[in-house]
Amino acid sequence: MRAALYMSAGHVVVEDVPDPALSEPTDAVVRVLRAAVCGSDLWSYRGVITRAERSRLGHEFIGIVEEVGSEVRAVRPGDLVVAPFTWSDNTCPACLDGIQSSCERGGTFGAPGADGGQGQAVRVPWADGTLVKVPGGPIGVDESVYAALLSASDVMGTGLHGAVMAGVAEGSTVAVIGDGAVGLCAVLGAKAILGAERIFLMSRHADRAAVGKSFGATDVIAERGEEGVAAVRERTGGLGVRHVIEAVGTPESWAMAVGMARDGGSIGAVGVPHTAPTLPLFQPLVHNLSLNLGIAPVRRYLPDLISRITAGTLDPGPVFDTVLPLENVAQGYAAMASRESIKIMLTTGDL
Amino acid sequence: MRAALYMSAGHVVVEDVPDPALSEPTDAVVRVLRAAVCGSDLWSYRGVITRAERSRLGHEFIGIVEEVGSEVRAVRPGDLVVAPFTWSDNTCPACLDGIQSSCERGGTFGAPGADGGQGQAVRVPWADGTLVKVPGGPIGVDESVYAALLSASDVMGTGLHGAVMAGVAEGSTVAVIGDGAVGLCAVLGAKAILGAERIFLMSRHADRAAVGKSFGATDVIAERGEEGVAAVRERTGGLGVRHVIEAVGTPESWAMAVGMARDGGSIGAVGVPHTAPTLPLFQPLVHNLSLNLGIAPVRRYLPDLISRITAGTLDPGPVFDTVLPLENVAQGYAAMASRESIKIMLTTGDL
Repeated sequence: MRAALYMSAGHVVVEDVPDPALSEPTDAVVRVLRAAVCGSDLWSYRGVITRAERSRLGHEFIGIVEEVGSEVRAVRPGDLVVAPFTWSDNTCPACLDGIQSSCERGGTFGAPGADGGQGQAVRVPWADGTLVKVPGGPIGVDESVYAALLSASDVMGTGLHGAVMAGVAEGSTVAVIGDGAVGLCAVLGAKAILGAERIFLMSRHADRAAVGKSFGATDVIAERGEEGVAAVRERTGGLGVRHVIEAVGTPESWAMAVGMARDGGSIGAVGVPHTAPTLPLFQPLVHNLSLNLGIAPVRRYLPDLISRITAGTLDPGPVFDTVLPLENVAQGYAAMASRESIKIMLTTGDL
Repeated sequence: MRAALYMSAGHVVVEDVPDPALSEPTDAVVRVLRAAVCGSDLWSYRGVITRAERSRLGHEFIGIVEEVGSEVRAVRPGDLVVAPFTWSDNTCPACLDGIQSSCERGGTFGAPGADGGQGQAVRVPWADGTLVKVPGGPIGVDESVYAALLSASDVMGTGLHGAVMAGVAEGSTVAVIGDGAVGLCAVLGAKAILGAERIFLMSRHADRAAVGKSFGATDVIAERGEEGVAAVRERTGGLGVRHVIEAVGTPESWAMAVGMARDGGSIGAVGVPHTAPTLPLFQPLVHNLSLNLGIAPVRRYLPDLISRITAGTLDPGPVFDTVLPLENVAQGYAAMASRESIKIMLTTGDL
């Protein structure tokens, strides 16, 4: 099959690799229909972290189950499925707590030794605990929702996790720091799923702000840093907002999040930079802040996200502003790295 | 009247100072019955922070209302009252959110320009929003509960706030880092008020561990650092605890808190060192931790704490292991600084 390989900073190729095969009775092999390029894929592309030459890339995909191991019960060949970006057994203590990203048998697609999503097929460990079937698919599911389903594999689940951790509820006032795909999905999750009323989106890119507004942002704030904090405080009677979603992960974005949170407020942080920052704790302590951080346990949210998407009540699809064939993945990395594109969706040919 | 004054590091005296008087119609003057020395009073005593020479000391006291301004309604002369360590109007947005420590008109006793608790009388700003009357007192309240009432002015409210922020509930497994008065009160709050079932107390001081056990600690762990983390994990099937109360505030205690928290767990942090540390966010992010920090809004908890104490169902009094007259306050500072004493209670003569 064909799959994307990392060669070196700024250099990604598509080459022939061996077809995946079942190796454990709990595995499935999934033929990829759509895959995505993630902001975190750009770390090695930009050379800020090292990555093995010829390693597989990508951790976001939807596809059709091709083959299942003897112990797999929840999915069958021919099913349309969404894979969260981490696999999980969904039976260990962490999974039972809804923290499938901490599964004791878990791992991440595209990590060393695992297949990546940016290829024509993927071996999925712990298929029963990982894959979620799209009811009626593929025949009863229109291709027009593939983008939305693909977003559920990471960015929609991650943005929603940020909003959930920030305690967003019906009528909430919320600020979202980060106008990448995760930040935009946080806006959508806060609005369409949790019922927020007023949503500040920090953005200075017209294309991203437009998607954010269509997702429910009521105020787009172009200022950054202390000026951004002042702009949000000015619009909230000086008090700040009770719920902040931090979807960047840098010291600067954290300073903004802490600066605009109302005393007693909550920050939901899903921003994963290549190195997590250190945070000065004095301000959070003085202002009684709740800092809730987490690699999203996307698997927890998938069944609900899939039902909303197939019912037509949730459409995060517009975060993908560019569609490319897998063979052109290098062009996709370049477009995301230059911020020409918010997020790339890849189409694949047959295995 | 007599009051404790800070002279220089290691040098505290009691001298004559002017009697306090009403200055605003919302003020009260309270004659102090009992006052306390706090761990945070030791920062300047140890010379790690600077403090003005001859400044007033102390922020924990109970007393009898002597005089009230024309707008004071909730307390009358002769009432027995508990003062939280910060005053608050209890009507501003932060107060209405239960974050009275962030009151827009608030302040701290013993701060520059304010009276300290370690004296014979205190001018209390915003008396209606600050003081909480002890029903039936002073005549119907036995002096034997004064120690417990005094603890409610800071350490009991602060320890409970840590437990509340950590999400402790009926049947919880909890770890408490810090065996000072706040950590011990966190044990008591977790057990007697919130219903925790298993409580690990990190302690290597026999006197403190004994109080901790009498307050409800089920396991006393003498190991520190990584060994302390390993000891707690070993006793929780390797998973760690869902609720950690951080009552020290140093980088080392934070590392322990993060290390022993179960994935998806919560830390309630009330440890206020002389400088708040910076926290590396990578582990909290990977393990989906909720970090809840806060200077305790003690006023929020006072009515409930006072009813439990006067009803005899809560007795944090044993955190005071030494009672001294105000005139001997220097001896008290020395005993706390050397850890000979857990916490000092001061008695006062008449005004």
